[in-house]
Amino acid sequence: MTRKYAVIGTGAIGGYYGAMLQKAGFPVHFLLRSDYEIACQQGLTVESVNGDFKLSPIAAYNNPEEMPACDGIIVALKATQNHILPQILPPLLHNNSVVILLQNGIGIEPEIGQIRGVNNIIGGLCSICCYKVAPAALRHLAYGQITLGEYANNYQACGVTSLVKGIGDDFQKAGIMIKISPDLMYSRWQKLVWNIPYNSLSVILDATTTEIMNNTASRQLVTEIMQEVLLGATATNRIIPDSYISEMLSHTENIETPYLTSMKLDYNARRPLEIEAILHNPLKIAQTAGMELPKIQTLYSQLKFLRDRHCQNS
Amino acid sequence: MTRKYAVIGTGAIGGYYGAMLQKAGFPVHFLLRSDYEIACQQGLTVESVNGDFKLSPIAAYNNPEEMPACDGIIVALKATQNHILPQILPPLLHNNSVVILLQNGIGIEPEIGQIRGVNNIIGGLCSICCYKVAPAALRHLAYGQITLGEYANNYQACGVTSLVKGIGDDFQKAGIMIKISPDLMYSRWQKLVWNIPYNSLSVILDATTTEIMNNTASRQLVTEIMQEVLLGATATNRIIPDSYISEMLSHTENIETPYLTSMKLDYNARRPLEIEAILHNPLKIAQTAGMELPKIQTLYSQLKFLRDRHCQNS
Repeated sequence: MTRKYAVIGTGAIGGYYGAMLQKAGFPVHFLLRSDYEIACQQGLTVESVNGDFKLSPIAAYNNPEEMPACDGIIVALKATQNHILPQILPPLLHNNSVVILLQNGIGIEPEIGQIRGVNNIIGGLCSICCYKVAPAALRHLAYGQITLGEYANNYQACGVTSLVKGIGDDFQKAGIMIKISPDLMYSRWQKLVWNIPYNSLSVILDATTTEIMNNTASRQLVTEIMQEVLLGATATNRIIPDSYISEMLSHTENIETPYLTSMKLDYNARRPLEIEAILHNPLKIAQTAGMELPKIQTLYSQLKFLRDRHCQNS
Repeated sequence: MTRKYAVIGTGAIGGYYGAMLQKAGFPVHFLLRSDYEIACQQGLTVESVNGDFKLSPIAAYNNPEEMPACDGIIVALKATQNHILPQILPPLLHNNSVVILLQNGIGIEPEIGQIRGVNNIIGGLCSICCYKVAPAALRHLAYGQITLGEYANNYQACGVTSLVKGIGDDFQKAGIMIKISPDLMYSRWQKLVWNIPYNSLSVILDATTTEIMNNTASRQLVTEIMQEVLLGATATNRIIPDSYISEMLSHTENIETPYLTSMKLDYNARRPLEIEAILHNPLKIAQTAGMELPKIQTLYSQLKFLRDRHCQNS
């Protein structure tokens, strides 16, 4: 069976992975908002380190009610847009549809579970450097791997399931590097080890990752924040080894060009910030387990102030 | 006996209090650096809510070796300049000279003790709104009270001593409101309850006190940081009541015009920041007692990054 895919949120991430799937022969239905007209006229343009390509026409929609039910629903909205999911998701679902959530942070799968039940939900963590350069046009600069893991109630680890293997196979056929996680919650915390310090400090200090790593004080602060993320993970009985911190630090030091995080790009464009999924939900999970993460709490409060002053409402 | 005073650091604070003493008839010797020439020619100009006045001539010096030994040495340098004290202080001291340190933060009195022994040191905390408007000219906008307390080894509380009463009397004769503290360390921690959150956040968030108080997240963060200061104070067995926090919050809300903190003014002028005395020393004291103040630690690291990137070296 060839799965039929839908992409909700055809920005850089959704556009890239949807385009790769369509190029490999999968039928893909794209939901767009502001880029809808241009996508209807011109299709989707991808400039990629792995070779440029153009898809035209694409099945473009600006109304989810007009889309067919699909087998795989890729949710690649900004997390700040998730409040529209209860309206958008239902028309796309049939009994066995799989929802594939390509977002960072923690706590969104349960929200999707409330819309369609907790079965057939997969979480995905993308390591990709990809930007929108114009309406319906994106530039893929580096990486591209997705870590996929099936979601079970309350983030119980459910191992390498046939469901996640099936979706992973499709993505691999489309040339996308896939890693399967037997424990989605572990992988989500692991991703936060990078995302919480660098996204937050890049906005608060108005700094690139290079600047943050080149200053003794901020480099030390990054390390301490990473330690708090590891502590937070233990609140859900996920033990990430300390060595992962030094791995992330040297990985970041080896990024060659000064790098603006996705949260910093959002901030500069005055877009809403994904601070609820990336900072607030982890803080709440830790707090429920009686655990304080005071440095992350400080960052979260500072980011809320900066967002309220500078960014559009979500 | 009429005391002879010296002012080390004739900026807004030192200039104002020195001028008030001279106006009341005390002999005052002013040490200046960049404003020396102008002070020699024009004296010292004070625009004050309590009435403008001009002192001309003043006893101005640019070399401490040329100054007479004095009875009261008012140290009103920026705390970031304290490394020059071992050179500047000794020529001004006789056996019974009293050093009056008008600086915020903790941990400077012991440094002065190393220069001249721990006797005859008084710490002062100024509540004043006063700016330099031109060389040897300053504007006093509001307040002016000083809390004075005698220093004893390791900040032991030493009560209301005759030494501090004597100096306090001089200042009161000069029209300066004086409060005597029986426990200098307590008063220093108390002042930090305001100084740590507002100075730090005004720089990190590029914000006035009004903006900070008007946002729910930053107002809450201020409260939490104040709680950490109270915790830090307990490391030295000083118990500041919780009610002091609400007092400071409503005091700040009632400041009518948006207010830039002194650290923010320093930052905007790219001057060195007083983060060692105001944040680092309290952190070290707490740490020595086995106590972590993680939110203040976060602020300190962020401020070090911002200082290193933006400010001149001290």
